[in-house]
Amino acid sequence: MIVLMEIAVLIFDNVNALDVAGPCEVLSKIPGTIIKYVSKETGPKLTDIGIKFTADYTLERIKEPEILLVPGGHGIESVADDSSVLNWINQKHNTSTWTASVCTGAVLLGMAGILKGLDATTHWMRLPSLNDFGAKPQKKRVVIDGKVITSAGVSAGIDMALYLTKLIAGETTAKAIQLALEYDPAPPFNAGSPDKAPKEILQLVMKKAAQRL
Amino acid sequence: MIVLMEIAVLIFDNVNALDVAGPCEVLSKIPGTIIKYVSKETGPKLTDIGIKFTADYTLERIKEPEILLVPGGHGIESVADDSSVLNWINQKHNTSTWTASVCTGAVLLGMAGILKGLDATTHWMRLPSLNDFGAKPQKKRVVIDGKVITSAGVSAGIDMALYLTKLIAGETTAKAIQLALEYDPAPPFNAGSPDKAPKEILQLVMKKAAQRL
Repeated sequence: MIVLMEIAVLIFDNVNALDVAGPCEVLSKIPGTIIKYVSKETGPKLTDIGIKFTADYTLERIKEPEILLVPGGHGIESVADDSSVLNWINQKHNTSTWTASVCTGAVLLGMAGILKGLDATTHWMRLPSLNDFGAKPQKKRVVIDGKVITSAGVSAGIDMALYLTKLIAGETTAKAIQLALEYDPAPPFNAGSPDKAPKEILQLVMKKAAQRL
Repeated sequence: MIVLMEIAVLIFDNVNALDVAGPCEVLSKIPGTIIKYVSKETGPKLTDIGIKFTADYTLERIKEPEILLVPGGHGIESVADDSSVLNWINQKHNTSTWTASVCTGAVLLGMAGILKGLDATTHWMRLPSLNDFGAKPQKKRVVIDGKVITSAGVSAGIDMALYLTKLIAGETTAKAIQLALEYDPAPPFNAGSPDKAPKEILQLVMKKAAQRL
């Protein structure tokens, strides 16, 4: 099945690199998709892993993408203060076929007024904050409500993108991409969620996060 | 535990974006690590997902990094023809504490003469080719032989980096990073390895790969 579809991915300084690369690794493999990396200003943006990602498009150059993808990361704090970016998210959502977020990208969707009344998820540490935007926070890895698909923290964007691929292009394409990316995860520890991690690990991560604030 | 450690990551045009972002998302969270993105020439490199990654360092500027990380992707074909890059890999390996690869990055390690007599893995489609370099191919997600740690296709770099984090900084740090990245994978399908994927999906992926050649 061939799909012709434009995907606009918002990037910004201190975006989380895996929030972007995880889902885009999946979505870029759907035949016929084109991904455009967008920011308020074009040029290199520093990511959390110290590598710079280049934005090739300004907000104005993006018309009506079928998919809007909003990643997260510590950089959302500066974006959250910028009404021009939040308005852009809202406008692109109005005409999108699918609007997706990874990790704390959901906070930006919320600030753009998109999550009112919707089931949604985000990084486990920020989940309660979705209430501030009228959303109904769900302790799930991927949540689909209407055309809005949100995912939990960082690595959850890969799972989200496979669900989205199934919706866009069918299960055969989604499975073929999963196999091509050898996505047969085998983490060495069972510590990837607050319910599964040992209590002392949970406390350590929350303490470190508190120190950042 | 605080570690002071330099990590050199080789990048190049048509590098696989998730091969880089997956492990670096983990390794960059180890306290005291610094990651340097290195290429034959500095500047932006186009990745397979259409975004450009910037290399800030030339090969010459990297002295004796504790960790050498070599990702894969279709771009390895051009690197494989460049003896200056292969020599650099070999030299940095001589003084490294750990030498790691993701996906077809193992092919570059092999061409640099590093895998002779070692157990190693790579993307399932290229696994037999490791024999060409005197390696002993292992159908495993992560293989550690001495100081060389290789991983299977693309997404396996995340698992590899968690093993490596345990070796470098201990299990508590590795688990804390896993929780911070919410790496509690839940793929919607069980199709991520050639053994698990339905036969028709396997044939589809192999047919597409053959068309690329």
